[in-house]
Amino acid sequence: MKNQTYRMTMLYDFYGELLTDRQKEFFDLYYNEDLSLSEIAENAEISRQGVRDVIVRAEAVMQEIEDKTGLIRRFEQMRSHLTSIQSAAAEIKTINYRQYEDNRLTELAELIHREAAALEE
Amino acid sequence: MKNQTYRMTMLYDFYGELLTDRQKEFFDLYYNEDLSLSEIAENAEISRQGVRDVIVRAEAVMQEIEDKTGLIRRFEQMRSHLTSIQSAAAEIKTINYRQYEDNRLTELAELIHREAAALEE
Repeated sequence: MKNQTYRMTMLYDFYGELLTDRQKEFFDLYYNEDLSLSEIAENAEISRQGVRDVIVRAEAVMQEIEDKTGLIRRFEQMRSHLTSIQSAAAEIKTINYRQYEDNRLTELAELIHREAAALEE
Repeated sequence: MKNQTYRMTMLYDFYGELLTDRQKEFFDLYYNEDLSLSEIAENAEISRQGVRDVIVRAEAVMQEIEDKTGLIRRFEQMRSHLTSIQSAAAEIKTINYRQYEDNRLTELAELIHREAAALEE
């Protein structure tokens, strides 16, 4: 299951709070804390299969919400716009540095870079 | 209920697909198509109160998801960053127009403006 960690982390970031406490706990331990199914099972004093079932169910719940709302997909589309903004701001800074040395242009290019970086978080 | 149309429209845009077909239908007719409770009731051949209950329930379902996930709140915070990006891009364009007349700077400022506008949709 762990080969899909990026997708799982996104699902959890967006929809984790819609899970039950137990689903949240196991999902977080497995994908974010990187514990094994066996380690989680031992701590929780249930079977390895029991832990697996909870995590698979948690994933299914969140994936179903994403399939319906498409909010993560929309978010990912936004990222490509941010990449364009970042590289345009970098180019403005370079042109200004080489030719005009205008302090206000430097400030503005840096502001755009900073704001776009904040959006990516 | 209609004094909260913006909030309702946002809830529906984000979470509408998580509603039942009937909730979706009534919510959409009431808030997006601007029909009255009585008009919806007449078309659906149920009581005005029945329509109201479905819409109130739909709102509660979506508001509960928003309270847990905070995704609309996060989206609104992003908007303020976009506003800063837009105004910085506009100022770069103005400085460039007045002092340097560098075609590439104009292109880049316009690209940033366009990409930020696409992000706001």
